[in-house]
Order: sequence, then structure tokens, then C-alpha cells
Amino acid sequence: MRAVVVTEPGGPEVLTVRDLPDPEPGPGEVVLDVAGTAVNRADLLQRQGHYPPPPGASDVLGLECSGTVAAVGEGVERWQVGDEVCALLAGGGYASKVAVPAGQLMPVPEGLDLVSAAALPEVACTVWSNVFMVAGLRADETLLVHGGAGGIGTHAIQVAHALGATVLTTAGSAEKLELCRSLGADVAIGYREQDFVEEVRRATDGRGVDVILDNMGAKYLDRNIDALALEGRLVIIGMQGGAKAELDISTLLRKRAAVIATTLRSRPTEEKAAICAAVVEHVWPLVADGAVRPIVHTTLPLDRVGEAHALMADSGHSGKIVLTPAS
Amino acid sequence: MRAVVVTEPGGPEVLTVRDLPDPEPGPGEVVLDVAGTAVNRADLLQRQGHYPPPPGASDVLGLECSGTVAAVGEGVERWQVGDEVCALLAGGGYASKVAVPAGQLMPVPEGLDLVSAAALPEVACTVWSNVFMVAGLRADETLLVHGGAGGIGTHAIQVAHALGATVLTTAGSAEKLELCRSLGADVAIGYREQDFVEEVRRATDGRGVDVILDNMGAKYLDRNIDALALEGRLVIIGMQGGAKAELDISTLLRKRAAVIATTLRSRPTEEKAAICAAVVEHVWPLVADGAVRPIVHTTLPLDRVGEAHALMADSGHSGKIVLTPAS
Repeated sequence: MRAVVVTEPGGPEVLTVRDLPDPEPGPGEVVLDVAGTAVNRADLLQRQGHYPPPPGASDVLGLECSGTVAAVGEGVERWQVGDEVCALLAGGGYASKVAVPAGQLMPVPEGLDLVSAAALPEVACTVWSNVFMVAGLRADETLLVHGGAGGIGTHAIQVAHALGATVLTTAGSAEKLELCRSLGADVAIGYREQDFVEEVRRATDGRGVDVILDNMGAKYLDRNIDALALEGRLVIIGMQGGAKAELDISTLLRKRAAVIATTLRSRPTEEKAAICAAVVEHVWPLVADGAVRPIVHTTLPLDRVGEAHALMADSGHSGKIVLTPAS
Repeated sequence: MRAVVVTEPGGPEVLTVRDLPDPEPGPGEVVLDVAGTAVNRADLLQRQGHYPPPPGASDVLGLECSGTVAAVGEGVERWQVGDEVCALLAGGGYASKVAVPAGQLMPVPEGLDLVSAAALPEVACTVWSNVFMVAGLRADETLLVHGGAGGIGTHAIQVAHALGATVLTTAGSAEKLELCRSLGADVAIGYREQDFVEEVRRATDGRGVDVILDNMGAKYLDRNIDALALEGRLVIIGMQGGAKAELDISTLLRKRAAVIATTLRSRPTEEKAAICAAVVEHVWPLVADGAVRPIVHTTLPLDRVGEAHALMADSGHSGKIVLTPAS
């Protein structure tokens, strides 16, 4: 198979397409012919040597894909050769073939083309597991999503809006703010010119937001806690703004609030399977009826993976960057 | 009625017993003849002027009591004059009479004398709401309780042990450690001589604990997070060790862990009623069958309230300090 390998830690130039042996399906696994994969910020960290794959995972980059079932391992009954699916991966998506535990496969949502489905697994599983399963956002509550124009942001806005929650979001340009509004954000805050805490207070009559989905970590910690409502939940899923910051426990205590930090990739296989099942149950119907759609910034052939990484590092994109191994 | 008032913020000497008008039961309220009340650390802070009562609550100190129903307000159907009860209060317990929302009354657990029942409401509601409702401790999990010999600690150890969890605890003297072990702690750690993180690792084969109930706040924040297992939950209910500390988000993220800070007193009346109902359902049977008992360090007449506060400030006590307004 063709696969992207990292020759040594470094910039986008270290990404090289090589021929590697085809994967075989282990017990409980399925091998896919990959139609599309998508770039995640974690891939950039892994390329730089900062985010090693979990034990047992492929060294090949790539946390999600879509494709066609090419082989089925022992004990797999639900999937058959030829099924069109998408999948959450622990690694290995930047390739023409990948092996994946059967529980992490999801059918392609009704009405969606196979390549575009590659843009959904990571964002759908991240948003559903964190905003809904961990933080328990309810329809009568308010969500603040940082980075609303990114892959996770564009998906979180759509799902929370479709389920009836009020959605506030931050983004860095007029164009991105407009995209967020078009996806259902009730309030879009330009973080370069506006103080998001002040804008949250204004938009919620001083009450604050019930759930925050944050990718900034340290840089936003105190302001995020300031922006929380009573019994609010801050879910940190990234540290683009650093890892260490002062926590004001007295404010947290006064608000009876929670700070939760979590990652999807390191979770055990059974938890990933439970998340995928919940996504198929709760999110796929929203995709099928058009309330939620994958937001794809651009689709590039696998050979242009370096370009795709440079594009994500620049943060000029909106939504997902998809790679196609077959083209 | 006789009641303890704070003449001005200060030491135990500012506590004075005065005659105040008897309370009348408002709609949905009950007035109790108080048999016993108990001292909480929050009372000491309130006496010093650091912890004002929530809006609408009595200025009289006292967050819990036991007693006999003396009058019943409009709309209260469940309780009748003469019922022996204990109650979670927003304030007003250091008095011969107190008015309380009916949802915060609980029957005296079977087999327990009325005065001793004053030692249970705060600890039972605090432990059940935080360790079980908020942190979701399960029978196959491990709990670390800081201050195991205190009122909350002695109760948390007994309940978690009775429900099948493994219990680790910290305390400051050989006598207190022995008390903790006698109440069911599997591991009792002397925090003056031992590093609790190291002892937790040793006792859990390096895995860490699933839930921590913490009253220290800032001073223990980093060590508590170090002591957490994967998907662990740190519940902070006090700040005896300060309010501000550096949070290492990367460790939290790696462990997929949560930091939750919460108080019981500020919760809305409906939430307190739900907590009291859960305590009666889950904890009172453990008291009735002897698996959980109130640990009372000493019982003093209300006139000796200053002495009771000095005793708690010294931290030489184990368990609760009860005051009896009638004696």
C-alpha cells in the first residue's frame, strides 16, 4: 500500500509517501481501502515528534478515514467486504489501506458521498463524546465553542444548534465569523477585537455559558472560568495556548463548576466503540436530514500531504482538509 | 428563642447567646425545636466575616440540626408536629428554634438518638452529593479522602467502605489514623511523615485513585492530580490550603481527568431537597444497620459555643462537635 511516513521529526517536508506492506485484519478488525482521510492538528504534533501514537497503533499518521471494506478479520459479523464506511482510527489513515477495530467503523451517513465522509469521524466523535457525553449539554443550555471555524468548531456549532442549544463561538476573521453564523451560531465573537468574557456576559444577561469546548488550554483558563455559568463545565481538548496556568479554585467553588480535560485518541477501544455507536445513533440522523454537514475546506491528493499540513499550521482554513490516497 | 449571634467579625469570643424572636414557618417550611446542632468549618469562616450566608438565609450560624417539628407551614403535608427529624440548613441551627424548607428535613435514622442525629445532615449530604452524585464513585473504584478523621472524612470512609469501594485516607496523627482504619479505611496515610502521592501509587499498583474528596484546595492541587487514575475525578469542597494554584492541563488531559469544585450551602432549595432524598434512600439504611454511625468528638451546651469553635480551629478533634441548645 501507499502510506505517508515521517522520516524524522520536522516540518511538512519530512512527510514522504512510501510503499509499505498491506495490513492484514487481526481478530475483530477490518481492513479498508481508504477513499479519504483528513488532517488533524494532532497529526502536526506527531510529525514534529511531540505526540507519539498510543502503544500498538500504526506509525503512519491519520486519525480518521472513509473507505470500502476490503477484508474482514475473525469474529467480525457486522461488516462485509464492499461496505462503504467511515472510521475513527488510532493512526494509519494517511494510506491506501488501513486496519481498524470493527467497533470504530460507522456506516457512511445517508446521502453523503464517500470521500466527504472522511471529514466526519474525528469531529463527530470528539464533539459527541465531550460536549454531550462528558459535559452533558442539554437543549435548554448554552454552549461556547472556541475556534468555531475549525473542523471541530464547525461541527460542534451545527450539532448543538440542531439539538436546540444556544451556541456562542469565537473565531479570528470576519469571513470565519460569517461561516459560524451560517452554521447556526447565535453569537459569533471576533476574539482579536472583542473580549469573549464580556460578550458572553452580554449575550447571556450576565449568566454565563453552561458548557465550553476549548482547544486553547492555559491561555484561556481563567477567562473560560469567568465565562462559565453556575454549574458550568469547561471541557479542554487542546492546548494550543499552553499547558500550565493558575486555577482560581474559589471562583470554581463559587460556581460549583468543573474543569475536565480529555482526549479521544488515548481512550480504550471499548470506549471508542461506545462513542462511535452514540454518534451513529444521535448525529448521523442530523447529517441525513441536512441539519449537519461536513465542512471541507479543500481536498488534496495524498502526495500533497505536506501542503495540507502547511495549510493547517497557517490556520487560514475553515473546516476540514481532506486527503485522497487513491487520486 | 435562644440563638447564637456574631456581635462583630472576630474570634470565638464574639459569639454571644441572645434572645431573638421565634421564627414562624413560611409556606413550605417547618419550624423545629432544636435538640442538637453541629459545628462546621464554614461556621468559623462566617464568624470571621469571610463567608456571608446566602441571600435570604438566617444570620444565626449553624448549617444542620436535629429536633422535633413544632409548627408546619402552608403546603407542607409530609411532616407533622411532634415528628423527630434532622435537617440540612442554610443557616440558623445554633438556636433553640429554626425554620427550614420541608424538603431539607430527613427522618432520624432508625436506631439513632435525636441529639446524635444532629451530627449527620451536613456530612451525609456533602459526601453523598459530591462523592456519589457528582463524582459517581462506583463499588469497584478507589476513593482518597483527605482529612479522614474530620466530620466529613469519618463519614466518607464509612459510606464508601460500606458500599464496597476501596478507601484511602490521610490524617495527621497516629490516633486519627487508627480511627480511620477502624472506620473501614483500607490505607491510612500520615500526611506529616508520608508523601500521599507515593503511598497512593504503592497501594494501587501505580494506577492512582478514581475519586479524591479534597478540602485543601490550592496546596494539594498538583499532588491530587498526580494521585488520580485515568478518568479520575478530583472534587474540591474546601480551600484550607489556599485558593490559587497552577493547574497542569497536560497531565489532566493525559489522564482524561476532571477537577470539580462545589459547595453544598449555595445550592438552590430544590437541589438540596433532591440530595436529602437521596441520602435518606441510600445512606440512612447503612446507619440503621450499623455500617455507618455518627462520629461525635464531644457534645457541649450551646452556651459553650466559643469553646466548640476553638476546639475545631485547633483541629485536635476527630469527627463532629455537637451543640445542644436545650441543655
